[in-house]
Amino acid sequence: MDQHAPAQPLYETLASRVVALIESGVLRVGMRAPSVRAFAAQQGVSLTTALQAYRLLEDRGVLEARPKSGFYVLGRPHQQRALPAASRPPQRATPVSISNPVFSVLAYAGDPSYAPLGCALPSASLLAAERLDRHLARCARVHGRHYNIYADPHGDAELRDQISERALRLGHAVPPEGVLITNGCTEALNIALSVTTTPGDTVAIESPTYFGLLQVLEARGLRALELPTDPVSGIDVAALDKALGARRIAACLLASSFNNPLGTRTADGRKADITKVLTRHGVPLIEDDIYGDISFGNDRPRPFAAISPKADIILCSSFSKTIAPGYRIGWLAANRRHDHILAAKFALSLSGAALPQKAMADFLKSGGYDAHLRRIRKLFADNIDRMRRTVDRSFPNETRMTDPKGGFVLWLELPDRFDANALYTRALSERICFVPGGLFTASGGYRNCLRLSCSHDWDARIERSVERLGELAGEMLA
Amino acid sequence: MDQHAPAQPLYETLASRVVALIESGVLRVGMRAPSVRAFAAQQGVSLTTALQAYRLLEDRGVLEARPKSGFYVLGRPHQQRALPAASRPPQRATPVSISNPVFSVLAYAGDPSYAPLGCALPSASLLAAERLDRHLARCARVHGRHYNIYADPHGDAELRDQISERALRLGHAVPPEGVLITNGCTEALNIALSVTTTPGDTVAIESPTYFGLLQVLEARGLRALELPTDPVSGIDVAALDKALGARRIAACLLASSFNNPLGTRTADGRKADITKVLTRHGVPLIEDDIYGDISFGNDRPRPFAAISPKADIILCSSFSKTIAPGYRIGWLAANRRHDHILAAKFALSLSGAALPQKAMADFLKSGGYDAHLRRIRKLFADNIDRMRRTVDRSFPNETRMTDPKGGFVLWLELPDRFDANALYTRALSERICFVPGGLFTASGGYRNCLRLSCSHDWDARIERSVERLGELAGEMLA
Repeated sequence: MDQHAPAQPLYETLASRVVALIESGVLRVGMRAPSVRAFAAQQGVSLTTALQAYRLLEDRGVLEARPKSGFYVLGRPHQQRALPAASRPPQRATPVSISNPVFSVLAYAGDPSYAPLGCALPSASLLAAERLDRHLARCARVHGRHYNIYADPHGDAELRDQISERALRLGHAVPPEGVLITNGCTEALNIALSVTTTPGDTVAIESPTYFGLLQVLEARGLRALELPTDPVSGIDVAALDKALGARRIAACLLASSFNNPLGTRTADGRKADITKVLTRHGVPLIEDDIYGDISFGNDRPRPFAAISPKADIILCSSFSKTIAPGYRIGWLAANRRHDHILAAKFALSLSGAALPQKAMADFLKSGGYDAHLRRIRKLFADNIDRMRRTVDRSFPNETRMTDPKGGFVLWLELPDRFDANALYTRALSERICFVPGGLFTASGGYRNCLRLSCSHDWDARIERSVERLGELAGEMLA
Repeated sequence: MDQHAPAQPLYETLASRVVALIESGVLRVGMRAPSVRAFAAQQGVSLTTALQAYRLLEDRGVLEARPKSGFYVLGRPHQQRALPAASRPPQRATPVSISNPVFSVLAYAGDPSYAPLGCALPSASLLAAERLDRHLARCARVHGRHYNIYADPHGDAELRDQISERALRLGHAVPPEGVLITNGCTEALNIALSVTTTPGDTVAIESPTYFGLLQVLEARGLRALELPTDPVSGIDVAALDKALGARRIAACLLASSFNNPLGTRTADGRKADITKVLTRHGVPLIEDDIYGDISFGNDRPRPFAAISPKADIILCSSFSKTIAPGYRIGWLAANRRHDHILAAKFALSLSGAALPQKAMADFLKSGGYDAHLRRIRKLFADNIDRMRRTVDRSFPNETRMTDPKGGFVLWLELPDRFDANALYTRALSERICFVPGGLFTASGGYRNCLRLSCSHDWDARIERSVERLGELAGEMLA
């Protein structure tokens, strides 16, 4: 894909030079590109030509124009590697049985003696949540006595105000009374499922999807119907429509953005189409927006609920991926079923821990979270970029990989004959952990795929581990 | 019941004088009685006669001898009021539908403008958990970074060690690996039920029982079979045996001690009998020991799991009633099904908040919890004593009430024609909240009963509110 048209216009040549800077790592994702004026002067061309080059790179998704700020590196110029194919899971609902293999992987994923490509959890050092911790220390010192009660089952009122305000910035009008604080996103998903399904029901999901979600379905006795999913555009709307027409689906459960493991950013228009189809079939949508704040671009994508405010949608999210995995603070926002949702929360765990919620509210009010997000978005974008670059030069040529625009996981697809479980076993023996693809489906498949997590500070050990995985994969395919 | 035998021996007369001191409030529950020597001198009798009087009061459960320390006031001499009758719930399993009325009561129970006889939750001022909060502040300051990860789904290792050590003191050998930390006792009960039942199953429970437990059964789609329960001795073992023989019961769920609302302290021998019956029928026991640490006596009662270590028992408990309702730290200890329990926890909420667990571990290690328990046991015993005294002089003569030996709730039974819901409505209009009896059953009944909570610092407002309830009840019965 390195061929150029023979008679290349000047702005194409200039664009290639910018790309080369990105490829070599001089310019990295999230960095500001030289100003158009500086670039023109540097290259000895007119302002117009320099701007043409930048606009071309913008069209190609390499640069991003930010009003009054200039151009920023958004991603790599074009796929060195092909994207994984859109998935084609079986068109039948399957009971879910995934917990046993998941636990064996998690045992290694959490072991610091293994290279941390397994666990999709930011390292504490990367999150650097000291400001939040100081708020907690202060809350415990100052407010302890006042807060040593069962919190309102809805959760801390100030925290709900803050979450409501942040939703409004995305055009999602959810009053504080519509927000319920939960023990992480997992509890939010449990509550959402408990008010929309009963055991034996079928839930439509993306494919591949996060194994933790499959475990929740398994524990609740639900069946999974996996939908064909494209790594760039998301689920296939026509296939969804057909599936909903063919059988009773109790709920549809989708990631809002940057789904785990594909990192898909579904366009707003397609989100609206999905919601329309669901509304027509009377099926509620449960959306998991846990990665939404980790957008590499200038804008933070809007959840389905913001795009289709009147639809039957339960939005679930948490702060676990962005600032505080140890705090276990998630939430749920819905525009109906409030009584059932409250009863479900009450029956599951009564209420949440009071002081961590209060500390999080103070942290959000202080503006600390936004500054923090700006920092980690760059960090994760840079991590993903380094990881892709390393995969690119280390893995066999047939390897496809995703090009996520947010989050911190990468999905690799190798030829069908490749056995990711065998690679997993070999990798473990060399103290490298990742998650084999088979864990991301209830219906079998993805055995030729793997997920690499880029959620730790990039270092030589991680780079070497990715290279080594590539070498091993090459040997196995040879 | 104030009649004496005509020819009363001297030690009976002496005993009556001690009782009078208790009745008048000079000696209160938990206080040390005068030494035998001082009492003999004071009354001008021999040491032997004084000791006879004390032994008599010990036999009657009024005093308690503590080795090397003397005699302490354990309870009131004999029931001024009859105990409520043993319950006789219907012998069929009923679906549970309790959440709506519970929420309307909870809204008032948590409102500080109402006299707090409704909510069975210690007030923050009474718990005085400042030491624990200081541990949390220190943990957040010192350990924040280190703990900002998903905790081991089992929970903090040091906290599990501490819980394991405390269990051992009661003769309950549960290794730290057998302990799972949960988001309060409610989540522990959910996990225990999720590994022993499926929706539609029947669970055998006490009657009356805690409405929160009924909400958990309702949310899980379980049916309740209520067992005849005596306020002093607990559930009827023969009735349990018969019930288990008559139908499939998936699990039996009982309070370990001081059940809410009856405050029952089931004897060890009867606990062993209950476990034997359950074992014979192959039915697991889920026990809720949340009130066990709040024993008014010298000894802390042993849970079923300590008495029958080989039986299929899942023990659930928490620190919510004793020190930290705001921390939401509960736990579960089981001697089998560990993999299923872990998978259930993982699917419900992944793991718990890390820093509050660490703070609790530090607090337990420091010995702070034991000192704290000594203090609050006296406080609650005194509260119950004052509450009983106030009910005694204010409520209609036909009122029966429990004589709890632990916990902080009192259960009143009025004549059948009495309508506790009507009293509830009148009481609310006078800014007094309590919980009407009908919430403590899934099968209807207890409409002539009410639960009063004594979990706040005793004050004139509370005393006046109890008196007022008694007056209103009298008017309603007149």
